[in-house]
Amino acid sequence: METIFTDHIRFDQDAWQLVLLDQRKLPTREEYMTCSTLNQAIFAIQSMVVRGAPAIGVTAAFAGALAAREARLQNEDDQQFRNTLLLLLDQLSHARPTAVNLAWAVGRLKRVLDAHPDQTPKQIEALFLAEAQGLQAEDVRICQAIGAYGGALLNDGDCVLTHCNAGALATAGYGTALGVIRGAIAQGKKISVIADETRPFLQGARLTCWELARDQIPVTLACDNACALLMQKGRVQSVVVGADRIAANGDTANKIGTFGCALLAKHFAIPFYVAAPLSTIDLSLADGSAIPIEERPAEEVTHVFGQQITLDKMPVYNFAFDVTEASLITAIITEVGVLRPPYTSSIAWAHTVFPKHS
Amino acid sequence: METIFTDHIRFDQDAWQLVLLDQRKLPTREEYMTCSTLNQAIFAIQSMVVRGAPAIGVTAAFAGALAAREARLQNEDDQQFRNTLLLLLDQLSHARPTAVNLAWAVGRLKRVLDAHPDQTPKQIEALFLAEAQGLQAEDVRICQAIGAYGGALLNDGDCVLTHCNAGALATAGYGTALGVIRGAIAQGKKISVIADETRPFLQGARLTCWELARDQIPVTLACDNACALLMQKGRVQSVVVGADRIAANGDTANKIGTFGCALLAKHFAIPFYVAAPLSTIDLSLADGSAIPIEERPAEEVTHVFGQQITLDKMPVYNFAFDVTEASLITAIITEVGVLRPPYTSSIAWAHTVFPKHS
Repeated sequence: METIFTDHIRFDQDAWQLVLLDQRKLPTREEYMTCSTLNQAIFAIQSMVVRGAPAIGVTAAFAGALAAREARLQNEDDQQFRNTLLLLLDQLSHARPTAVNLAWAVGRLKRVLDAHPDQTPKQIEALFLAEAQGLQAEDVRICQAIGAYGGALLNDGDCVLTHCNAGALATAGYGTALGVIRGAIAQGKKISVIADETRPFLQGARLTCWELARDQIPVTLACDNACALLMQKGRVQSVVVGADRIAANGDTANKIGTFGCALLAKHFAIPFYVAAPLSTIDLSLADGSAIPIEERPAEEVTHVFGQQITLDKMPVYNFAFDVTEASLITAIITEVGVLRPPYTSSIAWAHTVFPKHS
Repeated sequence: METIFTDHIRFDQDAWQLVLLDQRKLPTREEYMTCSTLNQAIFAIQSMVVRGAPAIGVTAAFAGALAAREARLQNEDDQQFRNTLLLLLDQLSHARPTAVNLAWAVGRLKRVLDAHPDQTPKQIEALFLAEAQGLQAEDVRICQAIGAYGGALLNDGDCVLTHCNAGALATAGYGTALGVIRGAIAQGKKISVIADETRPFLQGARLTCWELARDQIPVTLACDNACALLMQKGRVQSVVVGADRIAANGDTANKIGTFGCALLAKHFAIPFYVAAPLSTIDLSLADGSAIPIEERPAEEVTHVFGQQITLDKMPVYNFAFDVTEASLITAIITEVGVLRPPYTSSIAWAHTVFPKHS
């Protein structure tokens, strides 16, 4: 039996605290950060204590429960409570710009608030926690469904290249891209993985290697720039990545470097799969050109674990994401099935047939 | 007037020592390593105290002078001196496998030895030093010629992406790829540079940024995996890189990641130039498939300045070079002019017309 790792996002109901595995410190240290306030949870999202689009969504839902208690303690009046809470939720939804799951999770809390106009602040607080817990459990089930659908696309003996970490750590558990790998293995296939180290935050070297090694899935680490050579040598049978936001036409924002991998995969005729829940799809955007791309501090590039690697004050490009053109994507693996081009049709179909997922 | 930086490879004739700027420690520390023996010089080449194909060639020539003295002190007999020296030179020529300039420089020393069958060991020692000094001065002139030819290919206002360090530090001075940038600026053009950081050894972040900043040439650092996004955004007008070995058909071995840059440049219709002296061309190899690709220790990837970034004993791919297919190369910029496809013809032409350079 496989075990599902979910310890990295935990809500302590008695203390009313959100406890997060500090992903900045993995794999050499396993430390937890405790968030008692909304601001602490926002800091955790912004500083990448927790990262990965679905994990950010789940964290935001629990952060909403923290916000509900803060709003209740600050306000005697029910209407003032609701106004304060909406302001706090707005603040939360802007913690990071690219992953749409953040705004999507906050939207779910707002719908809970709207649906219960007569409930007391204390009841709303409990409803928010229940919504977050439901969203967390649902995300694991969604990842397992993605794993089952995606696992069927891999062949016995394949070596899969993945970029960044779209694993258990990036979701409530099990993972999207790594869920596909786990799904294939659960189907009895022998699968090995090449993990791009994923500069500058090194999610591949630090997180993907850590969680695959825990599950005894064979993984080899490579620098991002080795991708073309490894494909040329025939070491890669498919590429599977996660997503931070997918436009209505299938254009996909994901960790910086994904777009380059996709172009190289196309050159070598290697299938390139995106694994993501429907909640990652933003139907309000016709294509990827409108997806906001976060620029992060230069220090993430100029310093590695506090060690300076270049001259002081060197100008730096640090775009956190890029957008892979839909034409480069072989399929988008979701919890309701494998979507194929043309994505404008298949994405619209998925949202029409399975509206509760979106 | 531009100054030519040549302090990084210096021979102290009185002490008979080779003094090398330790490129492993730049840019935060400027330290020099002194080599009194051939083994120390080989260690310097292998551990990348000095790196870059032309710089390795120059270093090897000076290391040959160290070898000549060692052989002289070990042998009374002239013939035994020559036998010992040839063995030492063989050892030297195998210090690193990919850059052909190493074997080429050693070949020049062997020809000096052959051409002077009646000279004493002491005279050979002096001839080797003179050959090394000549090779060093010649390499600077060659880089300036590459700069003049290549500079003409760049347009005023261009932003040039470069990978690794093919600068003054990688040659006797001035540089090949960075020589092209210096050449364009000397021609009155305004040029800016994007430096790929170039994992794992970070030659871009550490060396290219350092030497361009010294010359007040505008440079912005980017992680290797940002290349596709920066090209998509129109930030890159051309790519210029160096080379470690070029086959007779133009296939070019250079620092890992170069091949990926070239594929991306082709997708975005951005010119991709290789800048290299004729000594980098290996006419004995029909194509790039026969170029030996060095694999280096895993620790270069798993540790950054001694800081561990992944789990213990993680399997790692650390190929130091890749081979860019000739079809992706817009032109090869040499000291005798700009070679264009088909390279089998243009390379053969260059070697026929300018045999003394090859």
